[in-house]
Amino acid sequence: MRIAIEYEFRCASAVRGVLDMVRNCPSKAFLSLFVLAAPLCEIAGSPVNAASPNILLVLADDMGYGDLGCTGSLLLKTDRIDALAKSGVLCSRAYVASSVCSPSRAGLITGRDPRRFGYQANLNMGSENYGTRVDLLGLPPGEHTLADHLGAIGYSTALVGKWHLGMGDGFHPQERGFQHFCGMLGGGHTYFPKPGNNKLERNGVPLTGFSSPYLTDFFTDEATQWISKQDEVNDEKPWFMFLSYNAPHGPLQATEEDLALFSHIKDRKRRTYAAMMWALDRGVGRVLDRLDELGERENTMICFFSDNGGATGNASWNGELSGTKGTLREGGVRIPMIWSWPGTIPDAQMHDGVMSSLDLLPTFMAAAGGMPLPLGPPRSHEDKNNRKKAVSLYGEYDGENLLPQLSGEQVAPRRTLFWRLQGQVAILDGPDKMISLSHRAPQVFRPTEDAGERDDRFDSDRTRADELFQLLGKWQASLATVPLWGSSPYWSSQSAKQHDNYPPRAEPE
Amino acid sequence: MRIAIEYEFRCASAVRGVLDMVRNCPSKAFLSLFVLAAPLCEIAGSPVNAASPNILLVLADDMGYGDLGCTGSLLLKTDRIDALAKSGVLCSRAYVASSVCSPSRAGLITGRDPRRFGYQANLNMGSENYGTRVDLLGLPPGEHTLADHLGAIGYSTALVGKWHLGMGDGFHPQERGFQHFCGMLGGGHTYFPKPGNNKLERNGVPLTGFSSPYLTDFFTDEATQWISKQDEVNDEKPWFMFLSYNAPHGPLQATEEDLALFSHIKDRKRRTYAAMMWALDRGVGRVLDRLDELGERENTMICFFSDNGGATGNASWNGELSGTKGTLREGGVRIPMIWSWPGTIPDAQMHDGVMSSLDLLPTFMAAAGGMPLPLGPPRSHEDKNNRKKAVSLYGEYDGENLLPQLSGEQVAPRRTLFWRLQGQVAILDGPDKMISLSHRAPQVFRPTEDAGERDDRFDSDRTRADELFQLLGKWQASLATVPLWGSSPYWSSQSAKQHDNYPPRAEPE
Repeated sequence: MRIAIEYEFRCASAVRGVLDMVRNCPSKAFLSLFVLAAPLCEIAGSPVNAASPNILLVLADDMGYGDLGCTGSLLLKTDRIDALAKSGVLCSRAYVASSVCSPSRAGLITGRDPRRFGYQANLNMGSENYGTRVDLLGLPPGEHTLADHLGAIGYSTALVGKWHLGMGDGFHPQERGFQHFCGMLGGGHTYFPKPGNNKLERNGVPLTGFSSPYLTDFFTDEATQWISKQDEVNDEKPWFMFLSYNAPHGPLQATEEDLALFSHIKDRKRRTYAAMMWALDRGVGRVLDRLDELGERENTMICFFSDNGGATGNASWNGELSGTKGTLREGGVRIPMIWSWPGTIPDAQMHDGVMSSLDLLPTFMAAAGGMPLPLGPPRSHEDKNNRKKAVSLYGEYDGENLLPQLSGEQVAPRRTLFWRLQGQVAILDGPDKMISLSHRAPQVFRPTEDAGERDDRFDSDRTRADELFQLLGKWQASLATVPLWGSSPYWSSQSAKQHDNYPPRAEPE
Repeated sequence: MRIAIEYEFRCASAVRGVLDMVRNCPSKAFLSLFVLAAPLCEIAGSPVNAASPNILLVLADDMGYGDLGCTGSLLLKTDRIDALAKSGVLCSRAYVASSVCSPSRAGLITGRDPRRFGYQANLNMGSENYGTRVDLLGLPPGEHTLADHLGAIGYSTALVGKWHLGMGDGFHPQERGFQHFCGMLGGGHTYFPKPGNNKLERNGVPLTGFSSPYLTDFFTDEATQWISKQDEVNDEKPWFMFLSYNAPHGPLQATEEDLALFSHIKDRKRRTYAAMMWALDRGVGRVLDRLDELGERENTMICFFSDNGGATGNASWNGELSGTKGTLREGGVRIPMIWSWPGTIPDAQMHDGVMSSLDLLPTFMAAAGGMPLPLGPPRSHEDKNNRKKAVSLYGEYDGENLLPQLSGEQVAPRRTLFWRLQGQVAILDGPDKMISLSHRAPQVFRPTEDAGERDDRFDSDRTRADELFQLLGKWQASLATVPLWGSSPYWSSQSAKQHDNYPPRAEPE
């Protein structure tokens, strides 16, 4: 119990008023209101109101669309994630901002199309980033993160797990709004970290010991410990936990105990993947159990999804979708997304409206009863060169508040989403999706009827293709900057091959 | 007379041997040979041999394809340029590396596809360059210029006029191989410079007075003076003069005397443009006269063309071509190119083989009897950050030696050329040209039959379009880097509009 009942009653009424207003407003007006009103809300240290829920964002990494029991897998076991879906809404047509890790995370954490600020290519920490300086490789300083927004209205904030948004000065999670961080700055990690030989840290201090030997379990330990601690010492404040598992991203490594549960899977890689997913599922279950123990389950809004679709290397399975991570086919950018907030969001719902990972920001802020920070010039300590000044000057927030849809009060609106990566550009506009490719003629699919993107409608409806091209051209011309860095040409070649050669298939056995 | 006859005889035989070998070799082998053999030729200060001609490159700026008497204009007067064409070969299907000034110049001066090293967007010195540092804006330090190559084999080198390849440290023409420079570093200039209020310099010293009040005449003065001086004090060395007029680029400014010659043109802007072209033609004529006076005409290889097609703003006329500067239509990238070397290249020839401004390097070096410098790591003083190290590591020289074609010894080979700029990507492969656009479906034209690019063959021959896409995809995937800087989204919108709205028209009156 966070506060006295009398106080809760008064504040909850105020929040309901805000939420009603938000639900009745078109998204543009809603966001304008946020921007205008935002300075009023920057009263750090105290929650906006007592009804603000905790927010738990759990991210999987390179998970295939079909790799949950609730999305079709017959061989994997994800009982706890399936139960999480049953406790809320399973969204079948959610899309991430990019089909590779780093720009996808840049999108979901800012609520902004990452191409707006040049975050197009994946972030590789080595020699594959051309055309810029190492100290510029990361989320541009002018961009606010979910933790910035929620921290500004009084949330305690923590990131456990994978960051992948920059390693240099100015990019550390604790410089980007997270009060607590335990994990790694890069994009991947061995699952059996050794003391003295790992890239893990807790709040800047390298780790020399681990509560669990397997990384996924260790991250779960850290997350549950931090959540428990908030209940003990910070009970007056709501919290935001971004539990950013690197599972089931490669390398393919699992414990012997977990592997033993999947001896029915012959394919060795798929068996390991199943064991990794099982550990991830166990982690989600343990966090849910802890919330129950603390009596915080109904006071916590949970969102679960994967940063992008299944990769070719990790034995994932994209179910009925074609393509892979790195492509703009459904298998690259469409992911299952679960929302759970018992008592507020109804349970046992399926939702097939189009939504985006860019919607997290307005949804979280609407739930919290706060306003996003205004977009403006970057932080003063980063204000020394032209690039940094310019980067945050263009654009706006791109998402929409999902609460009215998730609660069933609003039908899913028509959406238009865009992507650009490694020689590919795509638009989803209503039912139609066009992918313009560097190595072949454009294709138009209708994923609602053809999730496997087999039936190319480009030739049969050139009028529609022309409409889509006009929207796509307008979007591309609106992007204020070229990509801030590139990636190896290898990845463009890979994207082209993966686009062409990964039709839907049966679950690997 | 540069050298004693006996010495000339011996060396000329050696050169003929090299030229014969070059003519008989496929271009790839030819270039490999250059690269392998190049270190042997870096004997700066002495010419490779006595037959090495002077090389005069005259560049116009934003000139329309139809704006010469010899390419169709009935209203303009370009008698001296027309005569230059008659003295050699007028090439009707030459293409520049980009349809805007700065990357076009980066291509012609390096002999390399500028996209290979990230030089894709135009270089604006102000706020329109995003995503990088001002001190990186320019020709990457690892790239060699024509002046580097020719200087290394003993040529005296000079640039008079417009540079537009960077203004910061490391980018000044005198740091990029030019021993002499008089002109401006940026992309444009008033034609009536005032002492104390101009951006002109001579070898780093700001100019305070001008031999002629009109800029085009002043550049002509400077070029003829430098050429005369070479004859006086440097007679044992051949020279390379890059006479880089900014005419007829905007602003539209001409002298009253020149304007008076074009009162038959009613359109005020076109009349001014005609007067500017007349001053350019006068300049070319004066340089030719000086070469005649010095007895160097037959000892000088001359190349004349424009950095890109006519712009929308300067009242230029692209003749039978569609599109403008900034588009990848013929009117943006195809320019008339004149080669003259009396006694070596036959006179009064028309040539309709495809050629490229990237061919200048191998052609100049073949004429000079030298080898291009090897591509390798950048200069050591620029070796401090990852970008600069990486930029020159990828790729090769892209052009072909034109001498066998120009002399009539070889038929024009089939060529494949590529472009990418402001949301547009294009390939010319044999007779077919495909333009892949951000705002509309791809188009395929056959410029040999349809110079105005009116007949889109994309739908009628999808097999061919698919072939072209495969080549285009392979090229794009081979580009080692993202653009080093961007340009304002305004320019992408402009390119889309100009692509759509500039069909061929009659000469403006």
